[in-house]
Amino acid sequence: MRSIIWSNNCLTLLNQTLLPAKLEYIECHDWQRVAEAIRRLEVRGAPAIGAAAAFALVLGAGKLTELAMPEFKEKVTQIANILRQTRPTAVNLFWAINRMLTVLDQMAGNTDSNAAITALEQAAIAIAEQDKAVNEKMAVHGASLFTKPTAVLTHCNAGALATVAIGTALGVVCKAWEQGNITQVFADETRPLLQGARLTAWELMQAGIPVTLITDNMAGWIMKNNMVQAVIVGADRIALNGDVANKIGTYSVAVLAKEHGIPFYVAAPSSTFDFTIHSGADIPIEERCATEVTSLGGNCVAPQGVNVFNPAFDVTPNNLVAAIITEYGILRTPYNQAINQLVQECN
Amino acid sequence: MRSIIWSNNCLTLLNQTLLPAKLEYIECHDWQRVAEAIRRLEVRGAPAIGAAAAFALVLGAGKLTELAMPEFKEKVTQIANILRQTRPTAVNLFWAINRMLTVLDQMAGNTDSNAAITALEQAAIAIAEQDKAVNEKMAVHGASLFTKPTAVLTHCNAGALATVAIGTALGVVCKAWEQGNITQVFADETRPLLQGARLTAWELMQAGIPVTLITDNMAGWIMKNNMVQAVIVGADRIALNGDVANKIGTYSVAVLAKEHGIPFYVAAPSSTFDFTIHSGADIPIEERCATEVTSLGGNCVAPQGVNVFNPAFDVTPNNLVAAIITEYGILRTPYNQAINQLVQECN
Repeated sequence: MRSIIWSNNCLTLLNQTLLPAKLEYIECHDWQRVAEAIRRLEVRGAPAIGAAAAFALVLGAGKLTELAMPEFKEKVTQIANILRQTRPTAVNLFWAINRMLTVLDQMAGNTDSNAAITALEQAAIAIAEQDKAVNEKMAVHGASLFTKPTAVLTHCNAGALATVAIGTALGVVCKAWEQGNITQVFADETRPLLQGARLTAWELMQAGIPVTLITDNMAGWIMKNNMVQAVIVGADRIALNGDVANKIGTYSVAVLAKEHGIPFYVAAPSSTFDFTIHSGADIPIEERCATEVTSLGGNCVAPQGVNVFNPAFDVTPNNLVAAIITEYGILRTPYNQAINQLVQECN
Repeated sequence: MRSIIWSNNCLTLLNQTLLPAKLEYIECHDWQRVAEAIRRLEVRGAPAIGAAAAFALVLGAGKLTELAMPEFKEKVTQIANILRQTRPTAVNLFWAINRMLTVLDQMAGNTDSNAAITALEQAAIAIAEQDKAVNEKMAVHGASLFTKPTAVLTHCNAGALATVAIGTALGVVCKAWEQGNITQVFADETRPLLQGARLTAWELMQAGIPVTLITDNMAGWIMKNNMVQAVIVGADRIALNGDVANKIGTYSVAVLAKEHGIPFYVAAPSSTFDFTIHSGADIPIEERCATEVTSLGGNCVAPQGVNVFNPAFDVTPNNLVAAIITEYGILRTPYNQAINQLVQECN
């Protein structure tokens, strides 16, 4: 099962809003449909939306063959600017778009648009291919943290669906499982959009890994009863000091893990780090519409007109993070130092 | 709006499973229908199920007019034993049933069954009336904890719907609101059955108190952002050492409150204390069916056949509880001592 497939100038996305009830793919032939898919969360997960946006730019550029290079660059940049606005928190989106625009910038002024489109397509494919390699490396590094049979808790979905390959946090879980070091995964259902119930539980069942679904508010009780020995989650953006933005509820889980002496791990590729911001306070937090909270599975579950607060993400401060698993290895506190080192490795 | 009405040998219950979409009442003419309503959570909330069970015994006894006293007592006791099994955690159920059986025990052997039924009815009405008075006293004591404008977070529903009158935790909130000391209530939606979204938000909107609905996993982020200054919840059973069983997720909220230096208050009548158990470890925790988590309103929100853990309650240890508000006043640590004092006051 793959969430993102590029073939014959068409980006095929697994519609994640319909899972697990329906396995339905969306064929995107233009960049606008991809932008819509990102906004609607039909494609979601920081690495996956980065790759989707890269392919969106290829689709957009592909419609501009008649333009000369200056106008071509200008138009592609305009599309990039709109794509940037689809979601504000996950930095992989901006990372992938910037990488694509750098490819465009480096083209000679006399490149013809067909050659430019080919170069952009190759760059997008490279982003997707790199995500696969990065997932694999993170899985190997992360699995080394599990040296004995362990029950883990995860929040939201940081699996194959959130990436181009095996996932970030769930990639680590899968590798540790293969090595005999995962006994059980507790999946927080992750309200309001239930990515844990709909996606994580489904992925793990497909992989044959024992999974138990819980509501988000059970995480503390599970820990209190010694039912998990580690927490592992993905990330949407990580600041230079190691503060981690991730799906709403992650911060609560991190506090609960600290209270119970349970390590809280984050698995994220270097593309999830924002080397321009010093702390989590600088990360914009997307607020989404009230109906995500007031309805569940299409049913209204709250009084009409009730006031709702619906931040899609929260920020976990670095002092609650036991380790950050990247493709370059495992980062630990002091994170400023470890992440400065990562900056060097990425350059 | 009242959740429990006794009139003309009929117990009318507001069907809490249908709120807020439908305001529908259930007319119970026999004890079996009340037992079913307790099991199905059509009536819920510790004080409310206590009162409902008392009236169920009156309905049951009312069908036994032809029996002589020994058989009458035996039959009523049998009904009581079945009612006891409807739900295991909230102690008010057992408290109310025991109080009714004590009335029965104290009857002279030559009482006729009609007189016995009248006595049982008076005892049940007294339980309901007492709940009203107790709610009012708790509200006054509890409101004294709020001496300046405060935003509070609550979990589940401890309002009018959970009791016979104005509620426990929400009774306190209403009184503090009247005194100008509540700025806002954040209501955790309280998965799986959404009592916070469906009942608490609805009650507060009806009362004109500003309420903001959040998913359970947002509580930590709300606290981190200084959006609440106190937490107040109800309880289903409190041990002699002050450990508090309440709706699942309460424990997580209590840990989060501690992390943020926010007082965590519990409002509960003396009938919610179990003077026979020494700690929360002795409180049986009801586990409910998986479908509460995997579906909503008939819609499946998780993969078919997924494993689920669904405890309906958790236990918050006494060290996380800043104060317990009772009708006798405010209890504080050391709770063993304060609750021993409460035992004296109840006798």
